[in-house]
Amino acid sequence: MAAAAHAMDGAAHAVPHTVGILGGMGPAAGADFVRLFVQSCTERLQALHLPVHDQGYPEHWLAQVPVPDRTAALQDRSPGAHQPGDALLQATGRLAALGARSVAIACNTAHAWHGLLQERFPQITVLHAVREVAALLRLQGVQRVGLLATQGTYRAGLYRTELQREGIECLEPPEAGRERLMQGIYEGVKAGDLELARRCFAEVAQSLHSGAGAQVIVMGCTEIPLALGEADVGIALLNPARVLADALAREAYAPCAAGIR
Amino acid sequence: MAAAAHAMDGAAHAVPHTVGILGGMGPAAGADFVRLFVQSCTERLQALHLPVHDQGYPEHWLAQVPVPDRTAALQDRSPGAHQPGDALLQATGRLAALGARSVAIACNTAHAWHGLLQERFPQITVLHAVREVAALLRLQGVQRVGLLATQGTYRAGLYRTELQREGIECLEPPEAGRERLMQGIYEGVKAGDLELARRCFAEVAQSLHSGAGAQVIVMGCTEIPLALGEADVGIALLNPARVLADALAREAYAPCAAGIR
Repeated sequence: MAAAAHAMDGAAHAVPHTVGILGGMGPAAGADFVRLFVQSCTERLQALHLPVHDQGYPEHWLAQVPVPDRTAALQDRSPGAHQPGDALLQATGRLAALGARSVAIACNTAHAWHGLLQERFPQITVLHAVREVAALLRLQGVQRVGLLATQGTYRAGLYRTELQREGIECLEPPEAGRERLMQGIYEGVKAGDLELARRCFAEVAQSLHSGAGAQVIVMGCTEIPLALGEADVGIALLNPARVLADALAREAYAPCAAGIR
Repeated sequence: MAAAAHAMDGAAHAVPHTVGILGGMGPAAGADFVRLFVQSCTERLQALHLPVHDQGYPEHWLAQVPVPDRTAALQDRSPGAHQPGDALLQATGRLAALGARSVAIACNTAHAWHGLLQERFPQITVLHAVREVAALLRLQGVQRVGLLATQGTYRAGLYRTELQREGIECLEPPEAGRERLMQGIYEGVKAGDLELARRCFAEVAQSLHSGAGAQVIVMGCTEIPLALGEADVGIALLNPARVLADALAREAYAPCAAGIR
């Protein structure tokens, strides 16, 4: 009892780390990521028995910067102005300069540049959304997942590689389904037509579930959860942004959690 | 026709200004402000006939920093660690260093420090949410508004002063109603209990409408719209964060709008 009270006291005095969010890909998804992160922080404050008030949240910075299209860049890897690497590096550097100890990338496809960012900024932790998702699915005992993503994410094999590493099968739609998803992402969410987006995403999710037997559908592009909900499809959906937001909150509150271990 | 095409071409090449958002008061309201700002930018891109895609949005940075409680500080103006001024100045300075030309403060009560921020950072425009709201209400011909706000905002007379300047009457609840609002804000939204918050806010909004004859209810604290909607009260509600987000988008796209004037 006394030990617990003492530990609680230590936790109450620990200051959470400053963290950063690399957004703008697209901007609505970046905004939604902050909402999810704040929600994860609230849950973590409650779990740590710390008071939930404005001053209990970690300092965090959101960079919403214009980044060249990620999928287009993965189709043509020749160096040039359309490459996202420079924009991502510059924003990461500014987040590091603001004091961020960990950074989350609010875009699945941009994780193709994760290695570059982590290598150039070894002093910070660049979280990897796909690895966090794969680890969670393994813990949940899921064996077959259906992946909704951009052509860039499919092409780079981002989920396939990480899921296979955890022994999970990754089901991907055929070319026509991928084109349908790109239509939902670009002509739908990014252009402000959420109804079109919902139809495109639901159709492909249904076929991965009924046709291919996916137990869970991973919404592997941050634009997808902005238009699709479980009520639209009646299938278990996993939002990697939610998982990544939890991971960023875990990093931010590490000093506080250490106090009550 | 040719002139219009030329002007459009000029607008398409103009780069929007970088802008900043001063948040963390509370963090959920800051996240919601980014959502509203992105929405305002989408509408502005459409109005300017510019393509709506990720790269069309202005670079923007959200600072969610721990700021001492604003209402508590307005009760006791003696200098000390509990004053929000330093935290607000530091975050504004960092937003300016990131290149922000205009900054929006995502907290009504913090506008009590607006003069300080604008005076110390004359090189940027610090938008004033309350003045934007008062100007809009005058344009709409509204004569009597009911104000839901924190004790700090009432005490500082933030809305009263600006609304009177525009010839609009500002109806404020009696002390018991103010306490009920503070309960909704602190024990409700800031502590994660949205149901309690909704009950508190709806009750006071109803009494300002039926009892005092307010035509519009101004939700003059960024926490209030997170729990209250028009469907809850059946009265016209104005969200100053929406008005401020529009103003920030207007500032960001000024270079593009100039091209097609």
